Amino acid sequence: MTRPKNETVSPGATVRTRPGGRSERVRIAVMDAAVNQLATHGYNALSIANVAREAGVAETTVYRRWPTPADLAGGAVAHLAQTDNPVPDTGTLEGDLRTLLSQIIKLVHRPEVERILRAAAALDGGNAMSAHARESFWRTRFTGAGRIVERAVERGELAAGTDPDAVIELLVAPAYMRLLLTNRPLDDELLDGSVRRTLKAFDAAQKSA
Amino acid sequence: MTRPKNETVSPGATVRTRPGGRSERVRIAVMDAAVNQLATHGYNALSIANVAREAGVAETTVYRRWPTPADLAGGAVAHLAQTDNPVPDTGTLEGDLRTLLSQIIKLVHRPEVERILRAAAALDGGNAMSAHARESFWRTRFTGAGRIVERAVERGELAAGTDPDAVIELLVAPAYMRLLLTNRPLDDELLDGSVRRTLKAFDAAQKSA
Repeated sequence: MTRPKNETVSPGATVRTRPGGRSERVRIAVMDAAVNQLATHGYNALSIANVAREAGVAETTVYRRWPTPADLAGGAVAHLAQTDNPVPDTGTLEGDLRTLLSQIIKLVHRPEVERILRAAAALDGGNAMSAHARESFWRTRFTGAGRIVERAVERGELAAGTDPDAVIELLVAPAYMRLLLTNRPLDDELLDGSVRRTLKAFDAAQKSA
Repeated sequence: MTRPKNETVSPGATVRTRPGGRSERVRIAVMDAAVNQLATHGYNALSIANVAREAGVAETTVYRRWPTPADLAGGAVAHLAQTDNPVPDTGTLEGDLRTLLSQIIKLVHRPEVERILRAAAALDGGNAMSAHARESFWRTRFTGAGRIVERAVERGELAAGTDPDAVIELLVAPAYMRLLLTNRPLDDELLDGSVRRTLKAFDAAQKSA
């Protein structure tokens, strides 16, 4: 369980928290509390004071890491997404894309997630309070999902140099557009169609699992 | 300018308003006023009373056709989209898709349009007041744009039976996702990539203009 010191401080590396360390336990407690508050009271009622109380930590502990309710909400959705939904690794690009989109469809059907997405969509990009939280949330999501594309390139299913963000965006954008704008169903037809079209759009090689 | 009577009453046909007729003049005046009110005061301040005053018509005239501010806003965006942006007919599927997406990118950069989209995204699908206006707005947009797909099928660029909604959705969804969620740029890379991927995803036949 010990991790070489240089892994946490090597230049350019993400600073990692030891699993099980106090800082990681605090992070999990705060994120669980934020998810719970969002589910119970909604985004507009989300306050750092209430989240700190429920997590059993000092308010300053929360403020230091999540300076605004937008940061808390973004962190909470990322936490929810990562906890229940490890990035799929089924052995084929088709399997991975299908599992990823299924996870997202299930996730956005959770009332607290739907609420946060709608609240985020309502704010324009120039809203400074939300811009950082939003970018960091989507950066994390796209980077995680992008591993699917990298592995497909390694297996020879996608051409070298395929842009991971473009693949993930094409896969998921119709689902978000249906949720936020057109109100069309997020059903199996969408799931099948989005996976099939994404594979074709990026010339994915046929490969059996 | 006269239109045979049976064209307006034939079974199944959409009831049409004679261009230049009084009802059409009222519609245009109300829609222009709604666009203007949205641009000046934003979606949340949109009221039937103010729109009626600016259009120079009775409030009941507005209520009868646009019972809620959501109906007015949906109508106004559709009006704006149709007035400035006839459905493209360039002779090739690629040209039509490129022109359509360019129009949409320009349109969503208008502050009043961006505001309405964000306000619409903030409301959940169960919001009865907005559901009708929303569905009718998107139905109109997709049906208009769907002509692009129908003409491509007629020219042999797309297979018979290609679902027009699916083509248009794949083309435009990444742009809306960037605008509403990820805040990534709506730039030429998006335009080129979305057109190219949509053509590939639906096996469009190469065709020179």
